[in-house]
Amino acid sequence: MTDKKFMERAIELAGKGMASNAGGPFGAVVVKDGVIISEASNRVTSDNDPTAHAEVLAIREACRKLGTYTLEGCTIYTSCEPCPMCLGAIYWARPVAVVYACDRTDAADAGFDDRFIYDEISLDMGSRLIPFSQTMRDKALPLFTEWREKEDAERY
Amino acid sequence: MTDKKFMERAIELAGKGMASNAGGPFGAVVVKDGVIISEASNRVTSDNDPTAHAEVLAIREACRKLGTYTLEGCTIYTSCEPCPMCLGAIYWARPVAVVYACDRTDAADAGFDDRFIYDEISLDMGSRLIPFSQTMRDKALPLFTEWREKEDAERY
Repeated sequence: MTDKKFMERAIELAGKGMASNAGGPFGAVVVKDGVIISEASNRVTSDNDPTAHAEVLAIREACRKLGTYTLEGCTIYTSCEPCPMCLGAIYWARPVAVVYACDRTDAADAGFDDRFIYDEISLDMGSRLIPFSQTMRDKALPLFTEWREKEDAERY
Repeated sequence: MTDKKFMERAIELAGKGMASNAGGPFGAVVVKDGVIISEASNRVTSDNDPTAHAEVLAIREACRKLGTYTLEGCTIYTSCEPCPMCLGAIYWARPVAVVYACDRTDAADAGFDDRFIYDEISLDMGSRLIPFSQTMRDKALPLFTEWREKEDAERY
């Protein structure tokens, strides 16, 4: 299979997910060594899970199959540019590349918040729509010291 | 319970999760009407799931309990500033506020990529560590037209 075939499958999943009212029109596949190892479409509304974006679901499934928490050597094909949540998930999973079709502006034009969230992330916390406040850092900070010194910690 | 008690619980969960080798030293709770409705600690390494951050798990559990895909009227308490993935999840879930203890720099000092991913998100795609490329937008774009026109779409 080629790049084109993998993206065609991601787009097909997006369409099927929308048609079955699983969620929004988004699909993704994870490919390793030329083979699709996981695929998903958006399931936010059917699963009552705001994190059930196609990329997140495909990453979780691929990791489950591989028995690891990273996607080394994998490429993710997604029908739309990943939102900030999915982009973060991708960075934690560390695939070698991401290929997308539509972009954040296309998603915004269809009523999705992707571009809005990108804009919010770059703002100072005090300027964001959702208020963020900091407290009790002194109580939490020793945990990081403990983590650094923990001999059997599995670092990721 | 007060703000302080909720954050104490988030920090306690972070410590317990680290001690049991579930994952990194991160904990979070979701509070509604003065009551904790979900709580979680990081489970990345024990679940082989790069998305199993405390905030994501707590959001998913709270939504499951509430039977919705948003967290209206809820506040999230987390032992550390949310990473970009969790921040994205928070924006999709739409709680009224977020309270955190440590910040992205504290996390970076302990070896976590939170700050690095924040830096990457603000870069042009061509400058990012993980290469992103666009293809076949013309094949995917009609899905968004279909979504806009779909009468029984549940918009989120």
